[in-house]
Amino acid sequence: MMGAAKDRVEIVEVGPRDGFQSVAPFIPTARKIAIIEALYAAGIRRMEATSFVSPKALPQLADAAEVLAAAQALPGLEAQVLVPTARHAERALEAGARHLAFVLSVSERHNRGNVRRAPAESAEEYARIVAMLPEGTGLRLNLATAFDCPHLGRIDEAETLALLDGMADMAPRAEVALCDTTGRVNPAHVQGLFTTAMERFPQVARWAFHAHDTYGLGAANTLAAWNAGVRVFDASVAGLGGCPFAPGATGNVATEDLVYMFDGMGVATGIDLSSLAAVAREVAELPEAQTGGRVRVALAARACIADIAA
Amino acid sequence: MMGAAKDRVEIVEVGPRDGFQSVAPFIPTARKIAIIEALYAAGIRRMEATSFVSPKALPQLADAAEVLAAAQALPGLEAQVLVPTARHAERALEAGARHLAFVLSVSERHNRGNVRRAPAESAEEYARIVAMLPEGTGLRLNLATAFDCPHLGRIDEAETLALLDGMADMAPRAEVALCDTTGRVNPAHVQGLFTTAMERFPQVARWAFHAHDTYGLGAANTLAAWNAGVRVFDASVAGLGGCPFAPGATGNVATEDLVYMFDGMGVATGIDLSSLAAVAREVAELPEAQTGGRVRVALAARACIADIAA
Repeated sequence: MMGAAKDRVEIVEVGPRDGFQSVAPFIPTARKIAIIEALYAAGIRRMEATSFVSPKALPQLADAAEVLAAAQALPGLEAQVLVPTARHAERALEAGARHLAFVLSVSERHNRGNVRRAPAESAEEYARIVAMLPEGTGLRLNLATAFDCPHLGRIDEAETLALLDGMADMAPRAEVALCDTTGRVNPAHVQGLFTTAMERFPQVARWAFHAHDTYGLGAANTLAAWNAGVRVFDASVAGLGGCPFAPGATGNVATEDLVYMFDGMGVATGIDLSSLAAVAREVAELPEAQTGGRVRVALAARACIADIAA
Repeated sequence: MMGAAKDRVEIVEVGPRDGFQSVAPFIPTARKIAIIEALYAAGIRRMEATSFVSPKALPQLADAAEVLAAAQALPGLEAQVLVPTARHAERALEAGARHLAFVLSVSERHNRGNVRRAPAESAEEYARIVAMLPEGTGLRLNLATAFDCPHLGRIDEAETLALLDGMADMAPRAEVALCDTTGRVNPAHVQGLFTTAMERFPQVARWAFHAHDTYGLGAANTLAAWNAGVRVFDASVAGLGGCPFAPGATGNVATEDLVYMFDGMGVATGIDLSSLAAVAREVAELPEAQTGGRVRVALAARACIADIAA
């Protein structure tokens, strides 16, 4: 586990998608773009910039095309967009998307709640998307509720593996992310499922982990995935996320907390922690933002102590 | 890392000491005792009940003798008390203490700030305490700033090991705790130092880890210590702690967060999570309490969703 100097991870900043979508008041498009630019300035080079979904279902992301264009204007930024169906994938490609992240849920109940389809039907959507992708388009496959479902609780490993059995060969070059949608997974489950999946699907070139911090285990679960060999991690600046109907049910693990952890371990992220923390403090000021994470606050407290001491 | 059914850990609840001492307004003794009794009812069987220190330096713990007596009246509760010098150890023993936890800092600057002694002088105090202990008295050796010092930053592994070189044989039956006083340590450092120390000091029967959550890594660092083979973990109910002069600089990792993590891993703690979370919500209501942790809030939010759905 000791991080040698050459170790590195890729942090995927999902605040502009997973974070913004959880904020009720519309965030002006210019403000979204300013935050994306500030994240980029802090060293973020991969981002889930937005999502192409029904603007009726998710009015916050109705400006997806405009936000995507702005993100893609930043040199060297890999801007992925989340799509839940082939139709929305078409819209994203028409808008110029060069990296799609397709999401489906292992849990049938959760998948039907999101897209009114069984997981197997969503897998067919994925196949259609793979078939329509222009050469060179990046692709990620997100398995939501890969560990735990808000309605059903723990998802059996066999169920997640069975879904992957049918999908892993559709696009072997795709990155596969196992997502802890509820934040209820534990480190043993994370490490165990990744270890099994990585052995069973050697054709998958890259694996990613998507942690939520609702139960305080975002960093611990990320560490468990790291120990299993995962090197791509989703996180949201300021821990932005949560659900307006569940006070305290926080969102993704905070990007600055992961950067702090990996910095300490000597694992390169390419991100400047203090710049990122400054962006996080700004993001935390968004109206009705539900935030998480500790580093943003701890660094500010330390600055304040230094002031007193000086 | 997968937890078999027989795996278990011992959680040491340090809220009544590390937590209470950080709260400025005096907590009435009866309230302290009521919290200790509620923690016991939730299944806590080991607790740092108080500390014998100068009542001038720490007026919050001036009722140490009374609190200790109440804790020791609970059948099967192992109530340890923290002491920083031989003189205070004498006071604790006179008050009937049956388990002492001696603390010194690896960092000379930090140790001088706490007890106006060099670490080597504190090590002599420890030797005097070992010599005066009645047969059967429990003993723990806490190495504060074992990883990181608030003044000096990272503490070299060699420095911590050198201090233990001189102390490990003084009382081989003592439990040795490496403490992350600042919350700034990272999982690689935790796992690395424990692994080295456990190999170098085979005469130490039990090791413990004391995590703070100031930078969001309390659970991740606990997991790293677990992976190194540590089975005794300090934690504070509601994450009570922090420093009145550092807003946001939270305290120990929350007990309920660790119980949640170990429960999920199938590792027995003997503690009932939902009873503990109820105590945590009460503790969070203490005037000027600085709290941390996620589980207390997340479980309450889930209860609230269930209400809406019903």
